[in-house]
Amino acid sequence: MNFINVVDYAGTFAFAISGIRLASAKQFDWFGAYVVGLVTAIGGGTLRDLLLNVTPFWMLQPSYLVITGLALVCTILFGKWIIRLNNTFFIFDTIGLGLFVVVGIEKSIEAGFPFWVTIVMGMITGSVGGIIRDILINEVPLIFRKDVYALACVLGGVVFYVCTLTGVADELTQVLSALSVIVMRILAVKYHLGLPALKSAESNENSK
Amino acid sequence: MNFINVVDYAGTFAFAISGIRLASAKQFDWFGAYVVGLVTAIGGGTLRDLLLNVTPFWMLQPSYLVITGLALVCTILFGKWIIRLNNTFFIFDTIGLGLFVVVGIEKSIEAGFPFWVTIVMGMITGSVGGIIRDILINEVPLIFRKDVYALACVLGGVVFYVCTLTGVADELTQVLSALSVIVMRILAVKYHLGLPALKSAESNENSK
Amino acid sequence: MNFINVVDYAGTFAFAISGIRLASAKQFDWFGAYVVGLVTAIGGGTLRDLLLNVTPFWMLQPSYLVITGLALVCTILFGKWIIRLNNTFFIFDTIGLGLFVVVGIEKSIEAGFPFWVTIVMGMITGSVGGIIRDILINEVPLIFRKDVYALACVLGGVVFYVCTLTGVADELTQVLSALSVIVMRILAVKYHLGLPALKSAESNENSK
Repeated sequence: MNFINVVDYAGTFAFAISGIRLASAKQFDWFGAYVVGLVTAIGGGTLRDLLLNVTPFWMLQPSYLVITGLALVCTILFGKWIIRLNNTFFIFDTIGLGLFVVVGIEKSIEAGFPFWVTIVMGMITGSVGGIIRDILINEVPLIFRKDVYALACVLGGVVFYVCTLTGVADELTQVLSALSVIVMRILAVKYHLGLPALKSAESNENSK
Repeated sequence: MNFINVVDYAGTFAFAISGIRLASAKQFDWFGAYVVGLVTAIGGGTLRDLLLNVTPFWMLQPSYLVITGLALVCTILFGKWIIRLNNTFFIFDTIGLGLFVVVGIEKSIEAGFPFWVTIVMGMITGSVGGIIRDILINEVPLIFRKDVYALACVLGGVVFYVCTLTGVADELTQVLSALSVIVMRILAVKYHLGLPALKSAESNENSK
Repeated sequence: MNFINVVDYAGTFAFAISGIRLASAKQFDWFGAYVVGLVTAIGGGTLRDLLLNVTPFWMLQPSYLVITGLALVCTILFGKWIIRLNNTFFIFDTIGLGLFVVVGIEKSIEAGFPFWVTIVMGMITGSVGGIIRDILINEVPLIFRKDVYALACVLGGVVFYVCTLTGVADELTQVLSALSVIVMRILAVKYHLGLPALKSAESNENSK
């Protein structure tokens, strides 16, 4: 429990930092940056909870708002320093992603949904925050064009399902599912793996 | 029932294709295109179900995810060919719109809302998917500027209400409502009918 | 009750006008402008009600749709004239904001949430409509960069909480909370007060 909390909070912090940094590149004021950071960190889980018809998780305890506040203060105080930690944040962000996916899957199982819904919910939990972030800063969402972010979430869901089917213990299932997300994303970024872009129908036509 | 299912699935397919094609013009990767296609197809019904406080329809059976997958595979395999089917897709899309509107109205009536809410829900079901699609590809939503898409949805709702008031049988009401959406949209596109643009307050001022 | 209704409707009207005017600058057609005006007016309260899991307020009575329709008709008929009323609308808009925040806070208290959630809900009620408006017209949301719109909502929430803690009567609490929002926003606009922009991490780096 304690360990999961630590990872959850670290992931929240990393997601918030990613939102705040992108907002700062658009000259948002402090409050705007805070909102973008918060939405990046809690947006996915909020949509998941709305779809599952349960109270959004961040309304049950103030930790997520506080952690985002800390992320803002850190960015204001240590802006330069934080850039050099790019790799550290990538690791946080990726571990957070793995955990967010597992949390999303478990909440959906508790709510009684079949496995394919839980996989979608895991993906929503992990990736929708970043999509809303990119909409707020008026950019085409990054995950639609770069690395295998969302696909890693799907893989995590499939691993979770296979583990459940084959009777793997609950704790091990969680760890394996999160690990598969983390490893797939790290490999994809390291080796520049990605899905092919969909060839534009129009450019196909022109190249005849 | 069977016939409605066929139309529903055809409409879903056409909506998904429209999302995938627009995503491909922005060089989204396969997964990004899938997400945009899916959101185009299910976004309106999802917002409707959240507002009505019922479980989103696509979480109850996997058909919609599968159909969007088929739409992606078709676009990857038959990209060129699909362009030539522009008119076919326009027909699918328009029939799907008519059906989506009727489904939205009926779900809202079942949930016990008055007629003006059901008209709004019919419109949300038919048009919000396309709005989210355009936000995701970072364009100003098309329906705010072109043809009478959303207005056709409102007409369908009014026809539905008038039929109900005058005691028309349920099945006939559904058919007439969907038909009015379909006919109005086809006429609007064929004869370039549309609402006037709102004159910019600023340009008014300048033209004094 | 009557007085609050008048202010609520005037605020809705002012919010709708702000959406319709921005839509007209982008050449939206009448219906598109109506939708943007409506979403500006009801978007914040709708998200609040979804998060609180209650029926969205505008689905319970048609006033908000009708008022937005009036706002559209006024803009079409009196476009030029309305520009000269800029200050009048700023006052409406600001009073509406104060009231929306108080309504948001009270609904969240009724739903049984702790004070920090009610502050967030007050802010969501007051500011999310404007954020969705800016997303629909494909601009970076204004409130992230200009004046202290959202921060004024937070101040209103804090005043509300302090009043409750110190046993101030309910009606007075509402008035003081709304007034603090209104006064803070007017002062901020009059004296060009605002939060500092977050310095871009990247530009920091470059300026070394």
